[in-house]
Amino acid sequence: MEKQIYNHKMTIAYDGSSYSGWQIQSNAVSIQSLLEQAIKIILREEVRVIGSGRTDSGVHAMGQVAHFYTHTPIGYFKFLNSLNGLLPKDIRVKSIEDAPLSFHAQHAAKGKIYHYRFCIEKVQSPFQRLYQYHLHEKIDLNKLAAAANLLLGTHDFTSFANEAHSGSAGKDPVRTLRRIDLVQESEGWRLEFEGDGFLYKMVRNIVGTLFDAACGKKSVDELLSILKAKDRKTAGQAVPAHGLILIEVIY
Amino acid sequence: MEKQIYNHKMTIAYDGSSYSGWQIQSNAVSIQSLLEQAIKIILREEVRVIGSGRTDSGVHAMGQVAHFYTHTPIGYFKFLNSLNGLLPKDIRVKSIEDAPLSFHAQHAAKGKIYHYRFCIEKVQSPFQRLYQYHLHEKIDLNKLAAAANLLLGTHDFTSFANEAHSGSAGKDPVRTLRRIDLVQESEGWRLEFEGDGFLYKMVRNIVGTLFDAACGKKSVDELLSILKAKDRKTAGQAVPAHGLILIEVIY
Repeated sequence: MEKQIYNHKMTIAYDGSSYSGWQIQSNAVSIQSLLEQAIKIILREEVRVIGSGRTDSGVHAMGQVAHFYTHTPIGYFKFLNSLNGLLPKDIRVKSIEDAPLSFHAQHAAKGKIYHYRFCIEKVQSPFQRLYQYHLHEKIDLNKLAAAANLLLGTHDFTSFANEAHSGSAGKDPVRTLRRIDLVQESEGWRLEFEGDGFLYKMVRNIVGTLFDAACGKKSVDELLSILKAKDRKTAGQAVPAHGLILIEVIY
Repeated sequence: MEKQIYNHKMTIAYDGSSYSGWQIQSNAVSIQSLLEQAIKIILREEVRVIGSGRTDSGVHAMGQVAHFYTHTPIGYFKFLNSLNGLLPKDIRVKSIEDAPLSFHAQHAAKGKIYHYRFCIEKVQSPFQRLYQYHLHEKIDLNKLAAAANLLLGTHDFTSFANEAHSGSAGKDPVRTLRRIDLVQESEGWRLEFEGDGFLYKMVRNIVGTLFDAACGKKSVDELLSILKAKDRKTAGQAVPAHGLILIEVIY
């Protein structure tokens, strides 16, 4: 007799400061591994938690989405409490619900929203130091917005993609950036990115290049020639991970 | 010949999570001691940094004020950079300016504003865990506001004051609470307190007692009899330090 299978969809928030990233790695503590360990303790069943995509070491999430299959049904109300009771407080499962067996957190994703938060003041708030990049160069916010606009739409983003350690060789480098907005916050600024998908380190490489244009290291128009070059060496350096936060996965 | 004396006023923000509090203690790292050490390195002069008042272990500040005297004049622009360069990133000197010799950060204070931040959701944001108390009891926010209102004005707050380790014996326990507001934030709530001064642990003892009234452990009217009793044992327990933040010192 075949065993019944259940599929569960979770939304997870985490402060990435203390972790090696989403994905399981040997000799490092990842969000994925802590979730799998906690679920195993509760259900006494080994599961594989599959996220919408990895986030790098130090990157945060407000709305990472993941799914996992079990052979046992789950009473969600109690399960959520138990799970958050076992997890460290910098990882919180915000919600869990049943999903059709066909739901796959990575393959079903239709888009993602990332924010990159930064501070241009001389003195950064100590409460933002782990969640916001402190820029020391003087930048022109109008140039930043103008440069960002040039990247909107569908392009080959090879110039802004690092080679992943595994799994992305031969991946299609064409992506659509639907929206890039510059937004003021109470203690700084953020760039909001919405796209159908993002290549490895794409947001951080784009932000680094936009900052180069905004502080005059590159001209704004250079963004177009960098896109055309399809060569990672033409774009700027990635900005640090701690300013980046995965806000939402769109299905 | 007498040496010239200069007085300097600083505004300081800190994330108190890693510290034993503002005040110097043996065998513990305090904000005050780190400031004095950094200033000594820059000026090669031993100074005593005097704050508007102590904050306890784990309590945060957005606008702590302190002053110190030197025999050397200070070029503030460069000094501020050097000071923040030497301090850990969870302590930031926001500004420094010259003050009349008569200015004393503690004695000249006319009032203070504290916020106590808390979360009543089932799942707390991982980004708030160090800056917000997660209440697990169900509370009635209307009762909370009603109970807070009873404490407004000038009272003997003995029932809400712990005995300090030193220095406050015989201190006048009469204080004026000018304002207590319940304010909603994007990820929770806060109680804002403005008063002419606060006794040792007064805000945290008040908030603990207000929560008792708001979750039905005490009646709202009991607040008045607790005030009248002038007995610390009649009020509720102090809430944890990490929800408390010193916002502003008023001169």
